[in-house]
Amino acid sequence: MKKLLPVIALILSAFTSTAQDSTVFHKISDEILLHGTCYDNLRTLCKTIGNRISGSPQSFKAIAWGEKAMEEAGADKVWLQPADVPYWVRGKEYLKLKYGHSKYKNITMLSLGNAVSTGGKVLEAPVIMVKSFDELKQIPDEQIKGKIVFFDYRFRQDMINTFEAYGDAVRYRGNGPDAAEAKGAIAVIIRSMSTGVDDVPHTGSTHYTDMSKAIPAVAIGNASADTLEKECEAEKVTAQMETNCKMMPQLVRSYNVIGEIKGSEYPDKIILVGGHLDSWDVGEGANDDGSGVVQSIEVIRALKALGIRPKCTIRAVLFMNEENGLKGGLAYADSAKANNENHILAIESDAGSFSPRGFGLVMNEDQKEQIRYFKNLFLPYGVYDFTQEDGGSDISPLKKQGVPLAGLMPDPQRYFDYHHTNNDVFENVNHRELKLGAVVMAQLAYLISEHGLK
Amino acid sequence: MKKLLPVIALILSAFTSTAQDSTVFHKISDEILLHGTCYDNLRTLCKTIGNRISGSPQSFKAIAWGEKAMEEAGADKVWLQPADVPYWVRGKEYLKLKYGHSKYKNITMLSLGNAVSTGGKVLEAPVIMVKSFDELKQIPDEQIKGKIVFFDYRFRQDMINTFEAYGDAVRYRGNGPDAAEAKGAIAVIIRSMSTGVDDVPHTGSTHYTDMSKAIPAVAIGNASADTLEKECEAEKVTAQMETNCKMMPQLVRSYNVIGEIKGSEYPDKIILVGGHLDSWDVGEGANDDGSGVVQSIEVIRALKALGIRPKCTIRAVLFMNEENGLKGGLAYADSAKANNENHILAIESDAGSFSPRGFGLVMNEDQKEQIRYFKNLFLPYGVYDFTQEDGGSDISPLKKQGVPLAGLMPDPQRYFDYHHTNNDVFENVNHRELKLGAVVMAQLAYLISEHGLK
Repeated sequence: MKKLLPVIALILSAFTSTAQDSTVFHKISDEILLHGTCYDNLRTLCKTIGNRISGSPQSFKAIAWGEKAMEEAGADKVWLQPADVPYWVRGKEYLKLKYGHSKYKNITMLSLGNAVSTGGKVLEAPVIMVKSFDELKQIPDEQIKGKIVFFDYRFRQDMINTFEAYGDAVRYRGNGPDAAEAKGAIAVIIRSMSTGVDDVPHTGSTHYTDMSKAIPAVAIGNASADTLEKECEAEKVTAQMETNCKMMPQLVRSYNVIGEIKGSEYPDKIILVGGHLDSWDVGEGANDDGSGVVQSIEVIRALKALGIRPKCTIRAVLFMNEENGLKGGLAYADSAKANNENHILAIESDAGSFSPRGFGLVMNEDQKEQIRYFKNLFLPYGVYDFTQEDGGSDISPLKKQGVPLAGLMPDPQRYFDYHHTNNDVFENVNHRELKLGAVVMAQLAYLISEHGLK
Repeated sequence: MKKLLPVIALILSAFTSTAQDSTVFHKISDEILLHGTCYDNLRTLCKTIGNRISGSPQSFKAIAWGEKAMEEAGADKVWLQPADVPYWVRGKEYLKLKYGHSKYKNITMLSLGNAVSTGGKVLEAPVIMVKSFDELKQIPDEQIKGKIVFFDYRFRQDMINTFEAYGDAVRYRGNGPDAAEAKGAIAVIIRSMSTGVDDVPHTGSTHYTDMSKAIPAVAIGNASADTLEKECEAEKVTAQMETNCKMMPQLVRSYNVIGEIKGSEYPDKIILVGGHLDSWDVGEGANDDGSGVVQSIEVIRALKALGIRPKCTIRAVLFMNEENGLKGGLAYADSAKANNENHILAIESDAGSFSPRGFGLVMNEDQKEQIRYFKNLFLPYGVYDFTQEDGGSDISPLKKQGVPLAGLMPDPQRYFDYHHTNNDVFENVNHRELKLGAVVMAQLAYLISEHGLK
């Protein structure tokens, strides 16, 4: 009965409200699909600023752009929230491979994010291939010592949800260098976390437990990895590499960009919509996460343009430093706690610009039921899946404060073709898919603003 | 009760079968995602043959390629089925527009498919813009006489299902020339049936009721149409055009390509999977409908590779002449009738290579219920929508014989960016999305082969 009561109350209120909600859903959709500015905003962000790693000059241009875009969207109030972020710089780098007695051949590569350099030297060493951490463990240390370990773990193309496959493979990017170093390796090459049938390398953060033992780490594309795999099986392979990446010694004062529409009835109840403004230092950060940024701004713009005054405060947050530190997300959560803010829901879009299919829900079962009760309202917009549990990195620190989280789930098939690469550019975003994501974010924010989430 | 009986019978059989079905579904998915050849096949079709309008030399290359691909997929039997098709040839063409006293400017354009030429002459005439057939009707004939009518009807970007928006707009492509000619116009320019935010013209078939009164008809891209709209509101606009398209006087003997796996228990019960092999004469016919072609072949290949011997015959059909005559689909249905063939289901993929979301069902309610009973089996593959009613053009002639139809419904957001354009190329197909479409087609074919459809 305890479980049924809120449901019954909801049903009673819902009979009077869903017809009206459906009308507002339709208005939001029309407004964004016909007059949305998120696609144009994304073009500006990608083409006039481009990639924007935390602490970089471009990241500060993006902050200024975000502030202006939020004002143009009509936010009642726009402000910057300080967050001190790491600043990692790539520098020049190359990788050459020699198969047997052939000549060295240049291989397209990218150092992993946060990786250390080769220390002003050119490394040259034999390559030893392992398919997994288990295989690495079984090889005696003396066979690894002084060599470059090639982690040849394949992204699982058999998994329908590519985010699951990413979760499976990404441990090699995160922990590969530590594991190889522990066995005496001097550097690491990893097969990219990639669905791509191409030779595009994917960067992304790696992690060192002990910086004094950190070794260089680079990623290569699937085609180069396929070749290297074959050659390692057949021949002695030698690598030559130089990387000059560097983590700057000091944190840099940076900012989250925040804009909001004040709630008409419950101004102290906040519904957050967000994405992250920083990107890796390659491509244009279009899908990761320019799309989440412009969709969040679009939520504000559309509600304002429609003259919808939400009952609760709707706040758009463009987080800084999701990629290599989460300092923006942490600063936001700290500030929310210090100011005793009441977030009734935090929604993040950080899974690409593709057609929305659902929302991952990180909240208690009663709250999930409340959202699922309205699922038929979302069906005409292609959103049917409320079964997954995933919010978003930037909003995850709010979870400790008991804030319910929702993560926009776009179609996942293309994301890991582009993720963290030179191909994550504006041209790989479709205007209608991007806008539809903004539509359903605005709809969910509006719905919870109207009905609450207890 | 009459309605309940088949459902009860189904439930009884289903308890024993869905666990096994789920296992087979998984095997089919793994096989296609890990070892599928449909993406490579599509590359070959697009890059070595390219576009392939019915009757053209390329269409015959495509037939030979299809036959070979079907054999390589392991079909028990492969054959060609004759169909006499029209052969329409574009020729050189151009459109120039002059706004007020400016100079003539070249406009990117395409004659509509099946359109007549300007008869070896250059047409030059004032342009009169209408937003709809209604507006055209209200204008006195003398104001239209001798002019070129610009149908400026916008593809409705507010509609979530772009196929509905296409259905809404396409009447201007199909009937625009007749309607304008009836008022005395000498040619027609139409705004393309396009979701694109670009200047890409989309061709596609038009129709003349009386060939002796046929007038030339061309399409322009959205950007040119936007400019023309503004100029027509502000200035006198004159057009100059020459087109040399031509419908060849004789039908050409062409073929459907057919391959099948013979059913182990019910060889006379046929489940058809198909797409169409012809395309318009621009781009590479990648999404329309190279994808349906290679997916249909993939169904055969995957079942064979897995050693699955279906109870019913599974037949893949690559139809000829969907775009401008449907002669392949009609010939197939005629042959099925003449040979008293028993098709228990016909599935078509002709809506692009994008992530599958559902199947449109054209069948009686009992049959729909039987398929929907299994819908949870499809959910892990992103297929949730069995509410729409759309089969496919090529299989539509089978409907008269009472054959149940199912149309693969991919995500519809991008299709009308590429449809019938120079942009419908291999690069605009994602390998995973294409393969997933083949996965769910194979799953549905297998399922009905196992359980029947009464």
